[in-house]
Amino acid sequence: MANITKKVSWSSRADESGLAGEATPLLNGSEQPRHSRQFYVVNSFFLYVSLQESLRGRPKEIPHNEKLLSLKYESLDYDNIENQLFLEEERRMSHMSFRCLEISRWIVCGLIGFLTGLIACGIDIVVEKLAGYKYEAVKENIEKYTEAGGLSISLVLWVVLNSAYVMVGSIIVAFFEPVAAGSGIPQIKCFLNGIKIPRVVRLKVRTTHILMDSLEQKDAPLKVKSTSLKRDFKIFEYFRRDTEKRDFVSAGAAAGVSAAFGAPVGGVLFSLEEGASFWNQMLTWRIFFASMISTFTLNFFLSIHHKKTGELSNPGLINFGTFDSETMAYNLYEVPLFIAMGAIGGLLGALFNFLNNCLTMFRIRYVHRPCLQVMEAMLVAAVTATVSFTMIYFCNDCQPLDKDHTEEYPLQLFCADGQYNSMATAFFNTPERSVRSLFHNQPGTYNPQTLGLFTLTYFFLACWTYGLAVSAGVFIPSLLIGAAWGRLCGILLGQLSSTGKIWADPGKYCSVLNLTVIMMEATGNVTYGFPIMLVLMTAKIVGDYFVEGLYDIHIKLQSVPFLHWEAPATSHWLTAREVMSSPVTCLNRIEKVGTIVDILSNTSTSHNGFPVVVQPAKLCGLILRSQLIVLLKHKVFVELARSRLTQRKLQLKDFRDAYPRFPPIQSIHVSQDERECMMDLTEFMNPTPYTVPQETSLPRVFKLFRALGLRHVVVVNDENKVVGLVTRKDLARYHMGKHGLEELQLAQT
Amino acid sequence: MANITKKVSWSSRADESGLAGEATPLLNGSEQPRHSRQFYVVNSFFLYVSLQESLRGRPKEIPHNEKLLSLKYESLDYDNIENQLFLEEERRMSHMSFRCLEISRWIVCGLIGFLTGLIACGIDIVVEKLAGYKYEAVKENIEKYTEAGGLSISLVLWVVLNSAYVMVGSIIVAFFEPVAAGSGIPQIKCFLNGIKIPRVVRLKVRTTHILMDSLEQKDAPLKVKSTSLKRDFKIFEYFRRDTEKRDFVSAGAAAGVSAAFGAPVGGVLFSLEEGASFWNQMLTWRIFFASMISTFTLNFFLSIHHKKTGELSNPGLINFGTFDSETMAYNLYEVPLFIAMGAIGGLLGALFNFLNNCLTMFRIRYVHRPCLQVMEAMLVAAVTATVSFTMIYFCNDCQPLDKDHTEEYPLQLFCADGQYNSMATAFFNTPERSVRSLFHNQPGTYNPQTLGLFTLTYFFLACWTYGLAVSAGVFIPSLLIGAAWGRLCGILLGQLSSTGKIWADPGKYCSVLNLTVIMMEATGNVTYGFPIMLVLMTAKIVGDYFVEGLYDIHIKLQSVPFLHWEAPATSHWLTAREVMSSPVTCLNRIEKVGTIVDILSNTSTSHNGFPVVVQPAKLCGLILRSQLIVLLKHKVFVELARSRLTQRKLQLKDFRDAYPRFPPIQSIHVSQDERECMMDLTEFMNPTPYTVPQETSLPRVFKLFRALGLRHVVVVNDENKVVGLVTRKDLARYHMGKHGLEELQLAQT
Repeated sequence: MANITKKVSWSSRADESGLAGEATPLLNGSEQPRHSRQFYVVNSFFLYVSLQESLRGRPKEIPHNEKLLSLKYESLDYDNIENQLFLEEERRMSHMSFRCLEISRWIVCGLIGFLTGLIACGIDIVVEKLAGYKYEAVKENIEKYTEAGGLSISLVLWVVLNSAYVMVGSIIVAFFEPVAAGSGIPQIKCFLNGIKIPRVVRLKVRTTHILMDSLEQKDAPLKVKSTSLKRDFKIFEYFRRDTEKRDFVSAGAAAGVSAAFGAPVGGVLFSLEEGASFWNQMLTWRIFFASMISTFTLNFFLSIHHKKTGELSNPGLINFGTFDSETMAYNLYEVPLFIAMGAIGGLLGALFNFLNNCLTMFRIRYVHRPCLQVMEAMLVAAVTATVSFTMIYFCNDCQPLDKDHTEEYPLQLFCADGQYNSMATAFFNTPERSVRSLFHNQPGTYNPQTLGLFTLTYFFLACWTYGLAVSAGVFIPSLLIGAAWGRLCGILLGQLSSTGKIWADPGKYCSVLNLTVIMMEATGNVTYGFPIMLVLMTAKIVGDYFVEGLYDIHIKLQSVPFLHWEAPATSHWLTAREVMSSPVTCLNRIEKVGTIVDILSNTSTSHNGFPVVVQPAKLCGLILRSQLIVLLKHKVFVELARSRLTQRKLQLKDFRDAYPRFPPIQSIHVSQDERECMMDLTEFMNPTPYTVPQETSLPRVFKLFRALGLRHVVVVNDENKVVGLVTRKDLARYHMGKHGLEELQLAQT
Repeated sequence: MANITKKVSWSSRADESGLAGEATPLLNGSEQPRHSRQFYVVNSFFLYVSLQESLRGRPKEIPHNEKLLSLKYESLDYDNIENQLFLEEERRMSHMSFRCLEISRWIVCGLIGFLTGLIACGIDIVVEKLAGYKYEAVKENIEKYTEAGGLSISLVLWVVLNSAYVMVGSIIVAFFEPVAAGSGIPQIKCFLNGIKIPRVVRLKVRTTHILMDSLEQKDAPLKVKSTSLKRDFKIFEYFRRDTEKRDFVSAGAAAGVSAAFGAPVGGVLFSLEEGASFWNQMLTWRIFFASMISTFTLNFFLSIHHKKTGELSNPGLINFGTFDSETMAYNLYEVPLFIAMGAIGGLLGALFNFLNNCLTMFRIRYVHRPCLQVMEAMLVAAVTATVSFTMIYFCNDCQPLDKDHTEEYPLQLFCADGQYNSMATAFFNTPERSVRSLFHNQPGTYNPQTLGLFTLTYFFLACWTYGLAVSAGVFIPSLLIGAAWGRLCGILLGQLSSTGKIWADPGKYCSVLNLTVIMMEATGNVTYGFPIMLVLMTAKIVGDYFVEGLYDIHIKLQSVPFLHWEAPATSHWLTAREVMSSPVTCLNRIEKVGTIVDILSNTSTSHNGFPVVVQPAKLCGLILRSQLIVLLKHKVFVELARSRLTQRKLQLKDFRDAYPRFPPIQSIHVSQDERECMMDLTEFMNPTPYTVPQETSLPRVFKLFRALGLRHVVVVNDENKVVGLVTRKDLARYHMGKHGLEELQLAQT
């Protein structure tokens, strides 16, 4: 009884918050009923702003921001709607057609892989050119003014160039494509989890991402999708549903990671980790195929670009070089050291996430206007350049310039001829090159003070950068921090330890630690051997003890109804009856058009799924808002069907044509006469929705929901009458909802 | 209507087959009611024999053997029974207890990894010693008689030693532990799929396996489980259920693969591929942990054994050495060659599987008596030795013996001094060493004729060996064939091609092809780079086009109700109504003890799950045979409860104590008075079993069943009345059942 009372008060509190009421008019916005596409673009942006505005409007709510659950995110439906139309189509299909479908899936995956590789290659080349231009210009300038004493001009040049690059990118993101901010990994993670982040897989967002990647230092796996592309091919129209789309997004994500790091297996593991609850063997193979094609394409075109056509051994964009297997030998007594390094790495990662968490909260509260966002981004760029410059300037760590040196832009500065400034190697370079030089330069290239200063500075800069309104990720920066820190450890241990031989190659420790901070994220690229795994495991365990993953923090701060792997451990006392939304708006199997239009137009509820019942309230199916809209659009009314016998029967194709951008209800005109007609939902509804009894425990509902990727679970009583509906939000609020803080904390085990 | 009629005829045909009737008396066997453990040992063996006997009895049925579906295999239940007892326990548990549980899981996984590593190490050492003894003895003998001309004595010695080793192993398997035959991979695959292969995870079977592995050349991932071990620890009693057991078996399988090949990631992928539909992130990490510990333990103890304590870089038991990254460079024009090699590899694999399939059918028909099995195994051993000897004898491929040669047993035979017989390198060695020498020996070590002959001979020998009544797998032999074939390709291409440089190192092609035939199996160890993946993909696609995987063939031939990833594509026209078993034996919520005993004792049905209903037939729960038996054993009757108010309430512990070897119903004595008592099932039944409406399509039921790892799905009508029950067998028969051959063929897409 206590539980039920609690529930009631929760529901009323949820209503008080009024978020739904504020947002829904925009969602169903009646301003531009015809230009639905443009409208959506503007709309999703307005939504974004209005969320922030609504948060700003109630400052007392803001500290609890991560405990909000946004009602704005729709779910994807990874369950097939097995209505009569679908079943008829499936039954008509021969074994051959299924085989063709399977082959088309392979073709699509191949295309995704190919395009990903191509785009990755393009980005790589553009980044090289842009970074090359920037560093060449600054270097020339520095060399010119080193003697003359006008180095402040060089500083200004560097600051200006850096800021200009960032400004262009930042303006695009802040004003046109807010979804493209960040590394894109949280968005893909949400999509695979089953949340419709508006426009995340659209070509335009992807383009922005790619453009941005070219402007900034490239970073983070590229996720290239071809949703918009697919619509041109008639044969692929069967794939117009969330399930197939999810599979292709998985393939795209894998291909992106694969291209970025030259690691097809890593790519597959990445996808696997994010979407593992909907897995099967054929899909794994397809995703693997996409990853392979993408790596291959990238290598092929890069080899052409580098004038070595046909040499394919180049492993991926971000190439850290190979280690000699000799130097990777390790011994038993190093194991505790590895563990200690892992623990420290984990702590550092936790600190990073904590700081970034605070910063993001601050940003959500105060830096919410696009112009402010652009200014912040430019400020960060300017500060980065200034700090780097100052460090390089005041650091007197000169190293001899070998004839086989690998530095692309060696800075002499105040060093003697034939020497270069070693701090500049770390700062005055694309992060990727810095990592490579940290791994492979000879022992003695860096002295400990330089490395320590660099690590410290870069740590805070990276922390400040992540979450800016630019398409920049955290993967490469964290690799860089890890590598610098690892090399530092190696040097220090080498000085302390008497067995100098082992520590003579500090590069080993880089490769060990480079992945520690990444583990704060969720990539599964762990194919480097035992010591790395050991360090990673330790870092992961230590980090998890203190703080969530960085991506999870950002997902939470955006109030996304993200479903984790399992329901909170102690949620067994909650049952479906307490969790479900109720009362539910049900439709009759043969329903009046007017009623349907009214229900769909009701902005205070804006439900997306409606149980279909036969009197008295017995469940006989489930129909989605999108389906009803297509039916209304095509005016599939019983009276019409009777009068015009030759009427074309509605096909599954009509639903697919509308996918995924179904028009809003306001754009559909229904006359007063038509309102009096009836609609027969029998052949369109899903006649066998998944149901649970009222007494089902929350973890059980959760398991069903998560394992099958559902959008709605109907709660029925013991006479099969509808008593409620469980959606994603009903389940997710026990993780990160604003109610029941105890559950929220327990959910993080 | 047609479907329904069809269904009826199917059911009746299923009854005619009479398999259930024959087997069930044994299953519930009343001979030895008290010694239930011994009884089960004998019993499962009898079952095994009786299956073969029953098949032999009807020779006209045998050609369709792979189209049978055995009723003897029970399912595992990967769904938690969320009855009141369970929920009460969960609700009593604090957050701390859940955390402790989680930690114990990690500890158990660590232990599994440790023991696996330890055992793997033991096997390795024993195998080295035994093989060493065998080859040393034969070698000495050969050298002694080469001049004297009495080589037939050497042949006899070899044959006898070989046969003796095999005989010991074979007798153990054939007479005592039939489950330990083969590589163990199909059994683990079935277990993770949810099929209870009797005793597959018992310590004794594992011991046999280990013993066998020591006697034969070791092979195939070691799967070490600690079920029997676990029962000693009180803290682990929470884990006494199928779900937890499955997780630990996954960890054990991963640890085994990891130890065998020194590839923790490969181990995780292997487990992942077999059990991926029940996956989550924490579990992945635990399994990874087990794999790491196992590799670490193995390396640590092996390093002690090799007197190099503390040097841990030794990667796993089966160490193929590392390739120089230089020689692994490849070029664009090699890609078509890789594909061609992959295709040929796939064809070879398909041929292998086809031949082995025929052979296995032959064995099931004729070689079913243990003594025959032992004789066949010995025959194979003798023939292998004879063929090897003949090949070595007649092959005049002499190679110079370098001073840094790696051959452990170089055979001079008729070669000049300082030379050795190159065929002997391949045959007169453990397969592992042969693979290594094929990979790494200098170009020119083998001439093409030698390799061709070797490949051909070994192909047929391996094909004959797999499926014998010994614990021998197909992994290493197929690696060996692949390596030899790859090296042969390399040599031939090198001769044909003008660009000799590239082909100069045929070892490259070994590493490419070595994994092709493995892909006929299901290991996911694909971390070797692009060419290998390409070849593997091609081989897999080509192979799959012709024939199923070898493990799948064996699973099918054993008539195991194995559920594949998806329902057959064209099965949408089948609904739950046609698939389900009906009528169902239901129990009332408060049921007479006599009725329950009678139902459980009914050997013609021997159901394992019973829907619990309230009148009129409304579903209110599901109870398992095992639960009823525990209830009967503890005499939890309503009348007793009333008379003795202080009666101890039945705890979840009582159910756990009985797990997993629940006594048969015959061992429980129920007096005539007690038969009149009533039992209240309310707090023991699962009150919220998963249900589907009658109209649900087969793929939908399948998806629910497979994704959640269920054992029973209750089919209800629109008034929530029980109309049927869907179990694993109802679903699996559309893949491999004897009815509906069309479905069966279509299922293999």
